[in-house]
Amino acid sequence: MKINGKHWRTIWADEEGSAFHVIDQTKLPFVFETLKIASLADAAKAITDMIVRGAPLIGATAAYGIAVAMRKSASDRSLKSAIGILSRTRPTAVNLRWALNRMEARLAPLSDNSRADIAWEEAQLICDEDVEISRAIGEHGKALIETAARETGTRVNILTHCNAGWLATVDFGTALAPVYLAHDAGIDIHVWVDETRPRNQGASLSAYELGAHGVPHTVIADNAGGHLMQHGKVDLCITGTDRVAANGDTANKIGTYLKALAAHDNGVPFYVALPSTTIDWTIDNGLRDIPIEERGQEEVTHMTGVATGGAIETIRITAPGSSTANPAFDVTPARLITAFITERGIASASQDGLASLFEEGTAR
Amino acid sequence: MKINGKHWRTIWADEEGSAFHVIDQTKLPFVFETLKIASLADAAKAITDMIVRGAPLIGATAAYGIAVAMRKSASDRSLKSAIGILSRTRPTAVNLRWALNRMEARLAPLSDNSRADIAWEEAQLICDEDVEISRAIGEHGKALIETAARETGTRVNILTHCNAGWLATVDFGTALAPVYLAHDAGIDIHVWVDETRPRNQGASLSAYELGAHGVPHTVIADNAGGHLMQHGKVDLCITGTDRVAANGDTANKIGTYLKALAAHDNGVPFYVALPSTTIDWTIDNGLRDIPIEERGQEEVTHMTGVATGGAIETIRITAPGSSTANPAFDVTPARLITAFITERGIASASQDGLASLFEEGTAR
Repeated sequence: MKINGKHWRTIWADEEGSAFHVIDQTKLPFVFETLKIASLADAAKAITDMIVRGAPLIGATAAYGIAVAMRKSASDRSLKSAIGILSRTRPTAVNLRWALNRMEARLAPLSDNSRADIAWEEAQLICDEDVEISRAIGEHGKALIETAARETGTRVNILTHCNAGWLATVDFGTALAPVYLAHDAGIDIHVWVDETRPRNQGASLSAYELGAHGVPHTVIADNAGGHLMQHGKVDLCITGTDRVAANGDTANKIGTYLKALAAHDNGVPFYVALPSTTIDWTIDNGLRDIPIEERGQEEVTHMTGVATGGAIETIRITAPGSSTANPAFDVTPARLITAFITERGIASASQDGLASLFEEGTAR
Repeated sequence: MKINGKHWRTIWADEEGSAFHVIDQTKLPFVFETLKIASLADAAKAITDMIVRGAPLIGATAAYGIAVAMRKSASDRSLKSAIGILSRTRPTAVNLRWALNRMEARLAPLSDNSRADIAWEEAQLICDEDVEISRAIGEHGKALIETAARETGTRVNILTHCNAGWLATVDFGTALAPVYLAHDAGIDIHVWVDETRPRNQGASLSAYELGAHGVPHTVIADNAGGHLMQHGKVDLCITGTDRVAANGDTANKIGTYLKALAAHDNGVPFYVALPSTTIDWTIDNGLRDIPIEERGQEEVTHMTGVATGGAIETIRITAPGSSTANPAFDVTPARLITAFITERGIASASQDGLASLFEEGTAR
């Protein structure tokens, strides 16, 4: 998507084929900076420190992390070690494991001296495919928004949580891909952007990318969405997801479950947009079995922003001496989800619904 | 309650009877300061700027605001004008109107020259009564916690939203009064404190006062409560309220509705603690008719805290150019509330439940 009129992806290879670049998302929306990554350690750190985040982009970064490692040493041992290091960076996003499995399947059978070049090709292919998947999700979701626009006859109000926009993928996004395509098609839409505490990916990243693209939007506290739904101010919700279990239970940023409850209570459709790589066919009960990452206390106790003078400052906002807990995701039971928006179309949130579009998945 | 071993109330009259003092709650938890208020304008400003907040304390402050005004001029015109000014400070809390009505009923029949002294006496009486009401709420709520402790056989985990502790009242609090009395009685309890964006009254005020009293507690993002309830980590919820309609619909800090939905979905009891002055018998349908205050954008876009050097700083946290919406309260439908904890005991959340304890209210 565009920033100040120039087209960007969130990740791209260096021309020399030994390093790759990402947008440093820890500095948005205040500073736009890109970062060159030339080592496995830096690739792992980029994921752990959330310089890149969003399930599809984490997968793409892991793929390039393998490519960087292969350029240094393409031995079996190096491949295995790189996969181990990258797989431990974040526990919840299934795309990470998917991308590493794909890289391993492609590279393991090869001889050492051809691995590096093929690794770079494969990482590039993962990125290009991700863009096409996002675009397809956008087209299927756009049709839902068009229907809502016809039904309401006025502006369509869409609520989203966290950032599942193009910054979370290679381009277009998952939850926001339908928004961009609908907006570009001239449909009158407005997005309620949940702030998304504690890391504020909504107030910073979603608001930033929607603003940069010219989509009307309003930032709200995470607490506000239920009230807006009670008063008819939300026509539909679309979120992304970090992992969907085979039964349709959906892990996403902490707080998603609360919005799904409110949508259900008020008859507001609640959609989850995802590439099929986000489906974990090995888990039958998402609420019970999807691991939930517990992140550091300082994400709750401190907040970063721009001080009056323009400097970026981090302040402590909680009472001194109070400890915090910080579960990063929750699981929304399938019963609360109206449907999934995937690259192959709309699926009901159930084992049968997912299987109807992704028959090959159920065979795994 | 106590701060550093010294007992405080949130509001008290000056010994000379022409001014009153409050704790400046906009500076907590970083700085503890008290403020002397000697004019009607300053009393109104203290409420509008949330130097004092919490429905019962707003009522007490309004009463002292009238007393301050009467000391200056005790004419009918002055009384009417003071009531008008104070009644426009905050739209949602019904205690404000209740306190002003009580002051008017007490003072209007009097001659000008006795009004000022009686106004000071009446304001003091309102404060003393508030303390006794809070203590009674605490006793009734403590019994519920005792029952939970017997049932769980281990530590009781209580979730609360916003601040309905002693800082929101004259002393003890509403939602937290049961917590303090249970803790003081030796029951093993732990409080999950919702941060409560956008003004963070949980992370700042509730965490501060629980910490000062030695009650184990953990601050969480507002998004986290549903996840904790899904995993059995919350035994009961207690919140305060700014206005309860005659049908039991309950206005409280924005986000309360979302927690009530999650509690209902997970079979967790959801209690609302209130003095009966918070019941608005004139409203039959709270969801439809309780007015919801829309507060300023800067509460969402900016946040205040302590910078590394120790200075209190305000930073901007949202993307530049993004606008915000800021509804300050939502209404939890009575069907989601397990029961009300009042100064007269436990009432079911319904017209009949409220009437069974407060027969006199229904006659209004």
